[in-house]
Amino acid sequence: MEKKIITVSREFGSGGRTIGRMIAEKLNIPFYDKELVDQIAMESGFAPKFVEENGEHSPGSSLFSYAFAPQGVPGVMNGLSTADFLWNIQCNVILQLADKGPCVIVGRNADYILKDRPDAMHIFIHANMDFRADRIVRLYGESEKAPTVRLQEKDKRRRVNYQHYTGRTWGMAQNYDLCLDSSTIGVEKCADIVVELVKASK
Amino acid sequence: MEKKIITVSREFGSGGRTIGRMIAEKLNIPFYDKELVDQIAMESGFAPKFVEENGEHSPGSSLFSYAFAPQGVPGVMNGLSTADFLWNIQCNVILQLADKGPCVIVGRNADYILKDRPDAMHIFIHANMDFRADRIVRLYGESEKAPTVRLQEKDKRRRVNYQHYTGRTWGMAQNYDLCLDSSTIGVEKCADIVVELVKASK
Repeated sequence: MEKKIITVSREFGSGGRTIGRMIAEKLNIPFYDKELVDQIAMESGFAPKFVEENGEHSPGSSLFSYAFAPQGVPGVMNGLSTADFLWNIQCNVILQLADKGPCVIVGRNADYILKDRPDAMHIFIHANMDFRADRIVRLYGESEKAPTVRLQEKDKRRRVNYQHYTGRTWGMAQNYDLCLDSSTIGVEKCADIVVELVKASK
Repeated sequence: MEKKIITVSREFGSGGRTIGRMIAEKLNIPFYDKELVDQIAMESGFAPKFVEENGEHSPGSSLFSYAFAPQGVPGVMNGLSTADFLWNIQCNVILQLADKGPCVIVGRNADYILKDRPDAMHIFIHANMDFRADRIVRLYGESEKAPTVRLQEKDKRRRVNYQHYTGRTWGMAQNYDLCLDSSTIGVEKCADIVVELVKASK
């Protein structure tokens, strides 16, 4: 079965987003990450920054409350919490993007949302703590919190969000066609392995 | 860092053992599976068949009791349960095998036992239920139990054994450099990906 849709799930700081972009460039297909966020934002009425920051966070986060209804769309949430409302929109957007044609989708639980598409290949990128800590400081700069604390907090949020909306355990190999440790394999090599597999599926 | 030791952990019926053997043949390095079992058996005094059947099973299995002391080695278990005794021997044998030189080791929690060796690459092979059910019937024949029941029982035993002796969750991507779904990628292709990575590490 030809693989047309590549979903890339990733640990924060693992380089998964970069790998996703490399795959899209090498295959010359669209890459959805911030673009996806923007589209979700436009449909939901949320500000892009808000969606970007909360789209993969815990549904129990203090940021998520019924008080955060999007401006200008009164009543549109149909009694759903902000997180559930966002989840429904994310599902619809991702299903639509996959229907549009070949693409790479990073994050947003797309592996689960597209689990029943036989033409989708699901990738999980992870890396050891040292690699990730070094990477986030290099890419996003220092902050008041130690990098390992930032990573642990982000990991926990993604894990809780994923568990809540999919019923699956975050990081289980069985949810993916391919899981790669970018810290031992290398970011570029991870992309090459996936690209080769996609090409071989044609 | 050059990868010399390849550990292959696998779901029953996923073709992980076959993939391990292919990797060893393509790299022209020793392959340890039954050979390893035999060595463990010789050191422990257990019959090879007993070790093969119980080496990855639940420590709570009814087969494991203090009553199963190996014949001819009275007192050698030092008060350990059969399962714990076997685990200690497995650890020693696997550490020794890795010290001997490049090799492929399938199963026996070798990923955990060799986790601190930077020259080891850890692989996990899994596959969907249909693929595995078809494979075990083809390779091992029919039995009274449905193939899916046999798979679920075997999965549970490996999961419990792994959790008990390693404190880790069986199948978590983070425990491995590379996790591959042999049912979507193909058995031969899985071996090729690993071989290429090992060669690239030199």
